[in-house]
Amino acid sequence: MPSPPAAYARAHRARFLSELKRLVRFPSVSAQAKHSADVRACAAWLAEHLKTIGMRGARVIATPRHPIVYADWKGAPGRPTVLVYGHYDVQPPDPLKEWTTPPFEPTVRGRHLYGRGVCDDKGQLFCHVKALESCLKTAGRLPVNVKCLFEGEEEIGSPSLGPFLRRHARALAADAAVMSDTRMLGPDQPALTYSLRGGLGMELEVTGPKRDLHSGTFGGAVHNPLQALCEIVAGLHGPDGRIAIPGFYDRVRRPDERERAYMATVGPTDEKIVADAGAEKGWGEAGWSIYERTTVRPSLAVTGITGGYQGEGTKAVIPSRATAKLNFRLVPDQDPREVESLVRRHLSQATPPTVRSRVVTHLRARPAEIDRGHPAVRAAAFAYRRAFRAAPVFLRSGGSIPVVELFREILEIPTALMGFALPDDRIHAPDERFFLPNFDRGIAACLAFLEEMAGVRTPERRAAAEATS
Amino acid sequence: MPSPPAAYARAHRARFLSELKRLVRFPSVSAQAKHSADVRACAAWLAEHLKTIGMRGARVIATPRHPIVYADWKGAPGRPTVLVYGHYDVQPPDPLKEWTTPPFEPTVRGRHLYGRGVCDDKGQLFCHVKALESCLKTAGRLPVNVKCLFEGEEEIGSPSLGPFLRRHARALAADAAVMSDTRMLGPDQPALTYSLRGGLGMELEVTGPKRDLHSGTFGGAVHNPLQALCEIVAGLHGPDGRIAIPGFYDRVRRPDERERAYMATVGPTDEKIVADAGAEKGWGEAGWSIYERTTVRPSLAVTGITGGYQGEGTKAVIPSRATAKLNFRLVPDQDPREVESLVRRHLSQATPPTVRSRVVTHLRARPAEIDRGHPAVRAAAFAYRRAFRAAPVFLRSGGSIPVVELFREILEIPTALMGFALPDDRIHAPDERFFLPNFDRGIAACLAFLEEMAGVRTPERRAAAEATS
Repeated sequence: MPSPPAAYARAHRARFLSELKRLVRFPSVSAQAKHSADVRACAAWLAEHLKTIGMRGARVIATPRHPIVYADWKGAPGRPTVLVYGHYDVQPPDPLKEWTTPPFEPTVRGRHLYGRGVCDDKGQLFCHVKALESCLKTAGRLPVNVKCLFEGEEEIGSPSLGPFLRRHARALAADAAVMSDTRMLGPDQPALTYSLRGGLGMELEVTGPKRDLHSGTFGGAVHNPLQALCEIVAGLHGPDGRIAIPGFYDRVRRPDERERAYMATVGPTDEKIVADAGAEKGWGEAGWSIYERTTVRPSLAVTGITGGYQGEGTKAVIPSRATAKLNFRLVPDQDPREVESLVRRHLSQATPPTVRSRVVTHLRARPAEIDRGHPAVRAAAFAYRRAFRAAPVFLRSGGSIPVVELFREILEIPTALMGFALPDDRIHAPDERFFLPNFDRGIAACLAFLEEMAGVRTPERRAAAEATS
Repeated sequence: MPSPPAAYARAHRARFLSELKRLVRFPSVSAQAKHSADVRACAAWLAEHLKTIGMRGARVIATPRHPIVYADWKGAPGRPTVLVYGHYDVQPPDPLKEWTTPPFEPTVRGRHLYGRGVCDDKGQLFCHVKALESCLKTAGRLPVNVKCLFEGEEEIGSPSLGPFLRRHARALAADAAVMSDTRMLGPDQPALTYSLRGGLGMELEVTGPKRDLHSGTFGGAVHNPLQALCEIVAGLHGPDGRIAIPGFYDRVRRPDERERAYMATVGPTDEKIVADAGAEKGWGEAGWSIYERTTVRPSLAVTGITGGYQGEGTKAVIPSRATAKLNFRLVPDQDPREVESLVRRHLSQATPPTVRSRVVTHLRARPAEIDRGHPAVRAAAFAYRRAFRAAPVFLRSGGSIPVVELFREILEIPTALMGFALPDDRIHAPDERFFLPNFDRGIAACLAFLEEMAGVRTPERRAAAEATS
């Protein structure tokens, strides 16, 4: 027999879905200035919603860029405090024409809800919100103290979160954080992520002649910035698939053989990852499995190049400038700032004297590792077993969630990464989707997590901090 | 004392300028399907205008893509026939935001008229039209027989012109063609172009995973099509600035030392070309001057690359496809189709097994050379001296005008390339402009050319053809 909160969640399923759709309709694209007002509107709606479900002190807190939504419930003195983190900002929806239905008009097809951010991270964040509602509306209370922290800058590297956490470290004191923004292995294969790669986002601009030139008149006379850019970008990888930037691998920690054996046992096979990618073949650094290449080894993806004529047909032009966006993923013990300076030095040296180059850094995030034995991680494993009727495996992720490292460093708490996304949910891509059975099971898992956390003994240090905050 | 036609041209100067502006206002962009109707409207206006000035048989002739505008005046039996060629289509105006005033709102600033196509080729074409008008409205006749042929596909490689010329070769019979679509060396330095490079426009598409992928989750797992594209493009040039496609130079004819000495005497210096380009340094194939690199040596420009996220900030994506537009310029005795097959073979071999590639050919044009001693070329030299009070130099051009080779091959006539563009007119680039004193002098030169051609003896063959056409 389901518990009253579980029964409530089941009974209000249709409303929960329509509320999630409302949340997805905000085009809260944090990377694009034109969407700033949409991001703010989304934050305001979310804060108001948290108030409606019974959370206290719900508010929108301004940052230099996009606001943070905060709410709490502190009615369980002596019990642990859980920081529930999520992000309500989303990736840009481009390329728009590849969507089956518009990205901000959430649509159910089959057992999936489609829309930008529906999985990353609005749907997963909403599992927690609806679990909290289900407790508060049935029991009138939560099993543990809860602080909700939903940010609007995750997709741009969480630039305001660090300063915010530092300023409000006491008020945000907790025993552990939980977030759902990671992938399971399959619909019935939950997975707890225990490592994340760091990130470094840079943009290289190569400039040449002052203005665009006719490619007939000047073809052969000047170094084409677009060609020079290709030459520089092509030189960033060696033929062995390794990143050819001097010093880049110096601080990469080599996993021991026991760890590699565990990863080989529980992790996805090369074939599975290549199939998930919709690719025909794998590629990358020799000597490592693809799972390793995407988790314990760093990588570099050129995420965009712009230069010259992009329209139909031809235009006889040598462009005066060209840009490439570079996305590095870092692993322990690489330091984003140190890698950044290696990359800057290399790009500067790789720029031929016939053009000029300029580099801008968009984001930096440290790699993170989480202790698999921490009570919060164990609680998440228990919650998965309850909701999905399957024990989770422990996985490393290739993605970056800078906040995990910030929580460790500033709040000194670990984060349980209890994700509900599936490998084929197309996050960051057209037709992003969320598997609706995971919305139900996700809510159940969030409920189970809160209940399980109630039994975790609060360390003295935390209890003392709570008493004075 | 000016001749009556010259006096007429001077008296109607303001109206001529406002008519030219009208012509420039049509966004007759031949490369973009969305502008097809604009191209047609421009053709209709031009045909109507030719009727107004007194030309006969003015009409718009449909082709598979963009129409040809034709008109003639054949009232001088026994005199030579001149084919006046021009093109009323224009390059795409992108990037739009780099224009000081909108590309299709022609604007006079200082001594220049600004707008897309104002120089290439509407302004120069209009010099001929206004010269014809000035004769017809004063003398009631022209010094020679004239056939006007204005096409709407020059900027896309004139695909319909060859078949059109073949079909109407008899009706288009002439002693020589004249066109104004080339550059002078400076405002007082007219130049007759006697060679043009051929062209080959291709597009390379590299595809990888079926959909865009998250660059964290999949970074290091699959070959990024955008990176593979950069690697292929970077490999198209050697470190010596030469095109690294096997066999590419096999048929390139080496100019003899006398020709090189003449070019060094009359041609622009490296410094002049680099300054015209607004560049800081030259670049290119070792062992050749920049003037040679852009005229008697072939070249390859990457004219556009599209792939991944092109917006502001970052997007963590590995794109599923990327494309590069390649613009080759060919010299005697390279054959576009032969080079095309060399390029296709090379691109296919250069594509790593981890991605797929596909190549589309947009245009092919043969290189052209013109006999400097032909009477029509000498008449153009005389016309320049009259209108600009300076003897022209004979120059090679780096650009391609496929029609010159078509006229030679199909109509068996040479073309006098009597251009009025200046090196800093920014053709194909934002803020394209036309030096207004060259509009006046250009009309005067076109008048002088017609008068001078009247004294050229018509070969028997032509006279016979005329009698039966």
